[in-house]
Order: sequence, then structure tokens, then C-alpha cells
Amino acid sequence: MYAMPSKASVTKSPRADRIRHPEVDSFDLATIMRALGDPVRIEMVRQVDADGEILCTDLYERLGLPGSTGSYHLRQLREAGVTRSSAVGTSRIVTVRREDLESRFPGLVDVILRDAA
Amino acid sequence: MYAMPSKASVTKSPRADRIRHPEVDSFDLATIMRALGDPVRIEMVRQVDADGEILCTDLYERLGLPGSTGSYHLRQLREAGVTRSSAVGTSRIVTVRREDLESRFPGLVDVILRDAA
Repeated sequence: MYAMPSKASVTKSPRADRIRHPEVDSFDLATIMRALGDPVRIEMVRQVDADGEILCTDLYERLGLPGSTGSYHLRQLREAGVTRSSAVGTSRIVTVRREDLESRFPGLVDVILRDAA
Repeated sequence: MYAMPSKASVTKSPRADRIRHPEVDSFDLATIMRALGDPVRIEMVRQVDADGEILCTDLYERLGLPGSTGSYHLRQLREAGVTRSSAVGTSRIVTVRREDLESRFPGLVDVILRDAA
């Protein structure tokens, strides 16, 4: 017999909880450049890469960012395809999508990570 | 005997007419990334590089941009250090600052110019 979905399951489906990431095929160079066009976000990428993976909250703390600010910047990177966020329990772990970026835009990750100062 | 400068020479000195470009030493990666974070500007760089040098007005026309729009985008590129504009008579010729960019951010120009589509 058909059961109406409960209100809870409609408003908060597992699908809505998924962290969305663009596929490699839909990577867009201008979008990625724009995501990297901010010194805070460049530093985020460098810190994440240096650690390999890091908890979002640890990343924000290390950069001295309030959670809301850190979350905003990290979303720009994630939605452009630069980083990947994975849910681990109630936390999120961030990594740089090195291989995905390298496959589409060879050399770009090196430009970002090289200390050009 | 000292002559007061005429009003014309004060309000329109040769200095004010100069087209300003950042020195290589003051290039900033985030600023350059932000300048490149737009599909129109990426296409501008590709078109200028393909020709070696091109008149601003020809560039705008080729991309189907009104002068004001083209001028806006080109200024973002020039002020970030991506392109150089040189006055030739009453026109301006644009080039890509390939060597300057390569010296500070090796590989970046190749990422932009490579057709990743």
C-alpha cells in the first residue's frame, strides 16, 4: 500500500543533504579563475593541499576566518571544482581536486601552489 | 624668467596621458586570476595572442563588443598586468605580456591559451 511521504522526508531528503560538486567535464576555466581570484581562497587551496586533507573548521581557524566567511569562500572553490568536501560524521573534510584539475587544465594547480611571492 | 604653466598644461600633462601598467614585481596572483575570471576576457587574451598585436578597436569589433564594454574588460586585463596597451597615434595597440607573466607565474599563460574545451 502506498504511504504518503512524511513531511520531514519531503523537506529534508537525503538528496538535499548531498554535497554537490561539478563533474570534470563541466569544469569552466573562467569560473575556476574567478574562484581563485581572491587571496583568501588562494591561501585556502595552499593550506588544504599542504595538509592533503583538513577539516573545514580547522581550515577556517587556521586562516582566522569566522565560520560564515570561511564557508562562503570554500563554497566558491567547491562549486568551481577546485576543492572537494566530504561529510565525515557531522564534519566535513576538504581536499584539492588535483587530478581532476590537472586533467582539464594541466599546469594550473602548479601555478597556484608555487610560492610566487 | 619663470613662466606660470598655462591652465591647459596643468590639467592635461603628458604624465596624465600615459597608459599605466603594473611593474612585474607588483604582479599579484589573485588580481591576475580575477582579471581572467571572465569568459570575455579569456577570449580577449586568446585573440590578442593569436595576432601578436591588435588594435583595441579591431579587438572589440572581432568580439562583437561595444567600445565601452571592450574598454572596460581590457582595462581589467591591463591593470592586472595581463596585457599591454601602447598608444600609436590616436589608436592603441594591445599585446599580451607573455614574458612578464611567464617570469612571475610560469605556466599560467599556457593554461589560458591552451584550448581546454
